[in-house]
Amino acid sequence: MKRIYMDHAATTPLAPEVLDAMIPYFSERFGNPSSLHSFGRVAREAVDDARSDVAALLNAEPSEIYFTSGGTESDNLAIKGIARKSKKKGRHIITSSIEHPAVLEVCKALTREGFEVTYLPVTREGLVEVGTVEEAVQEDTILISVMHANNEIGTIQPLEEIGRLAGEKEIYFHTDGVQTAGKIPVDVKSLGLDAFTLSGHKLYGPKGAGALYIRKGVRIESIQQGGGHERGMRSGTENVPGIVGLGRAAKIAKENMAEESERMRSLRDRMSGWVLKEIEDSWLNGHPDKRLPSNLNFGFRYIEGESLLLYLDAKGVAASTGSACSSKKLAASHVLSAIGLSPVESHGSLRITLGMSNTEEDADYACRAISDSVKRLREMSAMRPE
Amino acid sequence: MKRIYMDHAATTPLAPEVLDAMIPYFSERFGNPSSLHSFGRVAREAVDDARSDVAALLNAEPSEIYFTSGGTESDNLAIKGIARKSKKKGRHIITSSIEHPAVLEVCKALTREGFEVTYLPVTREGLVEVGTVEEAVQEDTILISVMHANNEIGTIQPLEEIGRLAGEKEIYFHTDGVQTAGKIPVDVKSLGLDAFTLSGHKLYGPKGAGALYIRKGVRIESIQQGGGHERGMRSGTENVPGIVGLGRAAKIAKENMAEESERMRSLRDRMSGWVLKEIEDSWLNGHPDKRLPSNLNFGFRYIEGESLLLYLDAKGVAASTGSACSSKKLAASHVLSAIGLSPVESHGSLRITLGMSNTEEDADYACRAISDSVKRLREMSAMRPE
Repeated sequence: MKRIYMDHAATTPLAPEVLDAMIPYFSERFGNPSSLHSFGRVAREAVDDARSDVAALLNAEPSEIYFTSGGTESDNLAIKGIARKSKKKGRHIITSSIEHPAVLEVCKALTREGFEVTYLPVTREGLVEVGTVEEAVQEDTILISVMHANNEIGTIQPLEEIGRLAGEKEIYFHTDGVQTAGKIPVDVKSLGLDAFTLSGHKLYGPKGAGALYIRKGVRIESIQQGGGHERGMRSGTENVPGIVGLGRAAKIAKENMAEESERMRSLRDRMSGWVLKEIEDSWLNGHPDKRLPSNLNFGFRYIEGESLLLYLDAKGVAASTGSACSSKKLAASHVLSAIGLSPVESHGSLRITLGMSNTEEDADYACRAISDSVKRLREMSAMRPE
Repeated sequence: MKRIYMDHAATTPLAPEVLDAMIPYFSERFGNPSSLHSFGRVAREAVDDARSDVAALLNAEPSEIYFTSGGTESDNLAIKGIARKSKKKGRHIITSSIEHPAVLEVCKALTREGFEVTYLPVTREGLVEVGTVEEAVQEDTILISVMHANNEIGTIQPLEEIGRLAGEKEIYFHTDGVQTAGKIPVDVKSLGLDAFTLSGHKLYGPKGAGALYIRKGVRIESIQQGGGHERGMRSGTENVPGIVGLGRAAKIAKENMAEESERMRSLRDRMSGWVLKEIEDSWLNGHPDKRLPSNLNFGFRYIEGESLLLYLDAKGVAASTGSACSSKKLAASHVLSAIGLSPVESHGSLRITLGMSNTEEDADYACRAISDSVKRLREMSAMRPE
């Protein structure tokens, strides 16, 4: 059977060059970077090289990049690390209502430590309006965390405007860039960022490897103590092959970004044009333009997205209803609720996230598979009015 | 040049079968275990299988194993997670003065949250005496954390006795088993353990993958929030290839343990016999019998361990002075200080940790290299009395 993977926002396969770069660090170059002997020095150099490659992707300095075990840890470190360090200055945090759980649940945990959190609403297209940020700022606001692009609906936030505001008010500004790093340009300086989260396995790098950009001078404390690795910011033996893979993935992404994002955009628009025209009672969730080139999030009336997903899987097309993290929960997506969809509307959603392996032929095949499946499900549906 | 790696306590190369097991999960089986489609289901099954293999190594149930990014994270989770959850019951923690920094620094961090820590002394051989534990117990003691075997001197602690005491007093008992898992038998039940830390890269598995055993029923809270992975205990997309590698490494270690530990013991005793006989003013740090089969920690009067290390490296032998984590710090080892060595004595230490690749020929070569290097250094040494 033809197998088409269109769930790249959940995870991506390793780029073959990334795996090739990693392999030696599993075997002959397996040293611990903290060791003084030659095995250790070889590993240390590899970590340093990867740090430069990740920094280059973000227009940061290598010394501003800290390796972690992934996006979730980076979000935990950025938000807890900054909040706890600034708690004498203030205890108010601003975030959006459509963040990934790695931000929302961390904020929730911080409320148990005495922090207060404002969750900003978003527009029907999923945009955080800078005016709402400004209104939310209090005397004791210490941190704003707004994601770069949403993982479910792909809406890209106006970070530059928020960053400018944060800078004027002297409030730290963090963004979860797990869905944007390597896909659209990220310049931490022009976006006015103090901290930026990225994850290896979303950009054809390995799972278990991520990074956090922390602008030089930001006051932050570690959340994982031990041997003092990563200049005391993140203890634990460095995951050398993972870091090497992340570095290589960042390098490749930077080189291919312009071309690949144009190709994604074209595939995306081809699919959305076809689906919205051919399938009645369908719509696109998220913003029409301020959107990741690789993201589609359709709504189909009268069907259950989860059933659609399984029908598509049977036809060899891998997609999702929303984020992978919450795919096994029955609750409506908090993102789709926040953009104003009713529970019934949000249950009929389908997320398609495109990637390197997808071709025009795949896109056309997937469109027909979606159309056939929607038709079949609607024929059986008890939800459809007579 | 001949290259002999004898620093297996710092890190180990991946066993070839481990890498073979991991490779498919980087490429064709790259799915996110949380995804509902077939790519996701394949990854989920692999994680479940690995959980069973790790559980089997420890005589635990698969549901008692939680995957983490490594030993340091497991120690952080066990100690912070148990302490914070029990803080209404009490705020006193008992640990030893020779723990790894992943335990010591976590305890230190907890004192800033209002916890109190007792650091137990050890004997000249590095043993924690159960009587000292008993004396240290207070009304409000909630946790005892004593490592299974020391990473520098290899002394194996009397966990069973401590576990019995902890059980009687209804105090949670955690051990950092990073140096023992896969090397000597570990039975969490007979040791009376509530939590056990292990790390992949110390047992021929991958860096960036570790696990924490948490006995069913232990009250503990998560330290990394997000999408609720690992049954809410450790959020973050599972490092599937890393977990697969850890599972395979655990399985191989269990199969080979009896034979391999006997072989290590024989190599160890061959080296220690030769060195202590042939090199004057030398001694063995740690316990003569209650000792990891793979660990040697020599003391040589009148030399600097770091210089010895570099001389050995030049001869193709990779060893260390103490733990890799602290190898770049100039302070004397806290472990060697705790067993009563003077700063001068502890600076003349050399740790040899044997592993799968080492042969008798390697052992003999390394012995001669040590002897030649010690001789050379002593000829130049200003420390040696006339």
